[in-house]
Amino acid sequence: MDEKELIDRITKEIVEKLNGKKAISSVAVPVNAAVPENSNTVLIPSDVAQYIDHTLLKPEATASEIDTLCSEAGENKFYSVCVNTTWVSRCAKNLRGTGVKVCAVVGFPLGAMSGRAKGFETRHAIEEGASEIDMVMNIGALKSRDLKLVEDDIRWVRRACGQLVILKVIIETALLTDEEIVLASEIVKKAEADFVKTSTGFSKHGATVQHIALMRRTVGPKMGVKAAGGVRTFDDAVAMINAGATRLGTSGGIKIIKGETIESGY
Amino acid sequence: MDEKELIDRITKEIVEKLNGKKAISSVAVPVNAAVPENSNTVLIPSDVAQYIDHTLLKPEATASEIDTLCSEAGENKFYSVCVNTTWVSRCAKNLRGTGVKVCAVVGFPLGAMSGRAKGFETRHAIEEGASEIDMVMNIGALKSRDLKLVEDDIRWVRRACGQLVILKVIIETALLTDEEIVLASEIVKKAEADFVKTSTGFSKHGATVQHIALMRRTVGPKMGVKAAGGVRTFDDAVAMINAGATRLGTSGGIKIIKGETIESGY
Repeated sequence: MDEKELIDRITKEIVEKLNGKKAISSVAVPVNAAVPENSNTVLIPSDVAQYIDHTLLKPEATASEIDTLCSEAGENKFYSVCVNTTWVSRCAKNLRGTGVKVCAVVGFPLGAMSGRAKGFETRHAIEEGASEIDMVMNIGALKSRDLKLVEDDIRWVRRACGQLVILKVIIETALLTDEEIVLASEIVKKAEADFVKTSTGFSKHGATVQHIALMRRTVGPKMGVKAAGGVRTFDDAVAMINAGATRLGTSGGIKIIKGETIESGY
Repeated sequence: MDEKELIDRITKEIVEKLNGKKAISSVAVPVNAAVPENSNTVLIPSDVAQYIDHTLLKPEATASEIDTLCSEAGENKFYSVCVNTTWVSRCAKNLRGTGVKVCAVVGFPLGAMSGRAKGFETRHAIEEGASEIDMVMNIGALKSRDLKLVEDDIRWVRRACGQLVILKVIIETALLTDEEIVLASEIVKKAEADFVKTSTGFSKHGATVQHIALMRRTVGPKMGVKAAGGVRTFDDAVAMINAGATRLGTSGGIKIIKGETIESGY
């Protein structure tokens, strides 16, 4: 057993003794977007729940699977459920009174929907109960170096969100060079989004520790950074958080907070 | 050389002699949606151009790639270009006067966007110049057997299309059982769409001859059937048309109409 593992185990034991079997986080969880002051804080699995957007985005997901997602999120105190917009009102009803938020994806997963349509999808999702929006950036516009279009596209959604609804912008790191990840993160910050997010979970790969660190360096300490896609184990989660992530998107939250390993992402 | 191949070769030779090197279709192409009366019509590669929606849907497609798509469609007399809604106005400008239509995908590729947002995306795409809409069905609602939601979702888009804009509904056959393909095709017909379409090109596989034949049997002879995803060669194209397809979605149209084989789909 190495030193880190030993410290984790002892911390877990003590916290469980202090709080009863279901350990409550003893670590300050970032309320919204800011990175924890000491980003190498020791975490135990149950601490991680409040970082997690419990995610189900596959097109064939059924109403009953969405209901299960919501009960799991309530029971395990995840931060939110992350769903496609057709499911927002159902989730909002399911989660009333639980404190779990509804996060809706917009222009998902290609980001190539017109900005105006992204704005409308956002407004409608908010009316149905979403309080966080994960939109996909116009990746083709970035690749074409039409940076005005990239920014305008985000601003359509920012306006629809107002100031109360949290806006995350997915830049799909798997399709970008490091230089483009920096450029995209800068535009996301400039367009006044709350978070920059790595991945949709539908591209070549998901979040990597290196990309999270690069995004965090680019946007500075005050903005949110969300790692999504490929966050499958407790160790993945801790590595992402220590690299600068303040939110995690995963379908494997339950196994993560139990410290188990899961086999697939979304 | 078998009989069919021999006939194809001779036909091609004669048509090319009559029309110069670039053979013009000698076969009546369905104006809109209906299946050709004799679905085993012998086709030569250049006949196929008017069946093709020349397609570029990857999220990282650039403005310059979209411009190339449009010039190729004009030069080769494809039926339309099929693009994401962010590119509709650019394509409409590029294609003015060429006779090539702009086909826009909506709620793409998951189909899990709210019906109201699909309706808005459609209206906006039409304002920008689209005259055909390829929407994705709410697959999760079908899997949940919420058939009313599936139909209402299509009707949001049908209303936005009016009667002049062609509506195709992608049912994503790769995710459905044969029974569900029949059910989905029936709802698409009931909701007064013009075409039922197999695939987005972003799922496990694309169109198969068997699925096209099943969809054609289900919707009868008067409705359009579009094969998309996996239509890579002239032989694929002919097989789909003979099975009942009246439109083909492919990124490989140029090689198809030259009779060449291409390596990848979308």
